[in-house]
Amino acid sequence: MTDLNEHTITEAVLERFGDTPDPRLRMIIASLVRHLHDFVRDVEPSFAEWQSAVEFLTRTGQMCSDTRQEFILLSDTLGASMLVDAINHRLPAGATETTVLGPFYVRDAPELPLGADVSQGSPGEPLLVEGTVASAGGERLAGAVVDIWHSDKDGFYDVQLPGLQHAAGRGRFRTDAQGRFHFWTIQPAYYPIPDDGPVGDMLKASKRHPYRPAHVHFMIAAPGHETLVTHVFAAGDPYLDSDAVFGVKRSLVREFTRKAPGTAPDGRRMDTAWRHLAYDFGLKPAG
Amino acid sequence: MTDLNEHTITEAVLERFGDTPDPRLRMIIASLVRHLHDFVRDVEPSFAEWQSAVEFLTRTGQMCSDTRQEFILLSDTLGASMLVDAINHRLPAGATETTVLGPFYVRDAPELPLGADVSQGSPGEPLLVEGTVASAGGERLAGAVVDIWHSDKDGFYDVQLPGLQHAAGRGRFRTDAQGRFHFWTIQPAYYPIPDDGPVGDMLKASKRHPYRPAHVHFMIAAPGHETLVTHVFAAGDPYLDSDAVFGVKRSLVREFTRKAPGTAPDGRRMDTAWRHLAYDFGLKPAG
Repeated sequence: MTDLNEHTITEAVLERFGDTPDPRLRMIIASLVRHLHDFVRDVEPSFAEWQSAVEFLTRTGQMCSDTRQEFILLSDTLGASMLVDAINHRLPAGATETTVLGPFYVRDAPELPLGADVSQGSPGEPLLVEGTVASAGGERLAGAVVDIWHSDKDGFYDVQLPGLQHAAGRGRFRTDAQGRFHFWTIQPAYYPIPDDGPVGDMLKASKRHPYRPAHVHFMIAAPGHETLVTHVFAAGDPYLDSDAVFGVKRSLVREFTRKAPGTAPDGRRMDTAWRHLAYDFGLKPAG
Repeated sequence: MTDLNEHTITEAVLERFGDTPDPRLRMIIASLVRHLHDFVRDVEPSFAEWQSAVEFLTRTGQMCSDTRQEFILLSDTLGASMLVDAINHRLPAGATETTVLGPFYVRDAPELPLGADVSQGSPGEPLLVEGTVASAGGERLAGAVVDIWHSDKDGFYDVQLPGLQHAAGRGRFRTDAQGRFHFWTIQPAYYPIPDDGPVGDMLKASKRHPYRPAHVHFMIAAPGHETLVTHVFAAGDPYLDSDAVFGVKRSLVREFTRKAPGTAPDGRRMDTAWRHLAYDFGLKPAG
């Protein structure tokens, strides 16, 4: 039995975890213990402060549901998600840069034919999105799966709208033989991340705003390549410089170009003004 | 708009938190961001690993209830609680050493007269606990509030027993004019911390056992003094050297002495063998 003190306890805890059979888990826990203890020694929390931290984490866990992931929001707003992203994407030339997945991805979104309109009648400025998917080396990829999702004109995702029973602003496409895709939707808006929970409390206490600049999410999968998770951001958005989750990269910003009424490239007759976004994606070869 | 990378993102996040009005909160968040980012750079988690961490924390929050605090268990088993304890208790001579509060403390336990039996008929070896409360300088403290709680003979606290409607192995006493207290109960047992949740999963993955050596919790409050939170551990317990929460200190271990049937010090006639624990507590003056 040893009398542990504030200096000796860290090695004692590391020793206790020393029999962890999985070497990767052993390494992760050891690093966690060292950094957690260093953090505690650095800030010297009072009991009341430590209790506040426990309560903050508890509320964060209890805020999570099928359609809300508050720990991902916490990771995002602390810059940890983009750091994990950067570490996992040391990319070759020609590969599109990545950004956060975010909390609104839904598995098994409806698969739709090229050219379909995913807006499902949600009001807003019509937007034609088109592009290509290629390997980083330039070879076009046919049959790549292009999952897309974005907010409505008020900044809400379909899963945030309690009355809505179907997918909207969300769909899955496959590139054609030339690696091309296109679909119709509506112009997304900048929006606050959900800020009625502990993460919102943290942002308020720090005088940080909760906004993300307008963007369309893409998850693109093709055999022999790493799945690409990214956004394309709307040029000119007021929050490009202060994205609440630190997700913006210059290469991911594009004009969502305003167009006058007339005939769109796919032959659709437009009676109102509409917008046009084009982006060509490059996927990193796997392995 | 800056293209943040794995090296520049930390300063960008710190800058974003730079307007936090409360200087203490600003310091804590800055330290958290630095240590969290250093941890991520150290372990270089894959997306799947980061997702596992998010899921672990989510399950930890969702395991919490009125009678279960899984984040306290996590803090305890990572040695963080005892580290916070050590930092907050740089004690003068004569002051009793402290240890973790643990997750089973209940506010407003029933106040009982000195000599009462808190076992409430729970089976086990009878135990007489007596002691004194003094200021670290030696002056006895009359009217100090002595909150006690401990496990039953099977290692369970009253709040863990779903059928039980009343407090058991739990009570609150006031010291007499000479700073003395005594009460009857039953001998507590070593026990596993609740290990059917994420913290239990962590211990299993690390080949750590979940046991704590047998002990009685004390929380002792007196005007003009810091409230003392501690345990007294039973000498000879097989888990004194490997307490799952790192809470044992030599000065807190005492014999729970076995006694033959006969008359106890308070005059109670004992027909069976019983045990006797004596401990004199010293409280640190406040401020």
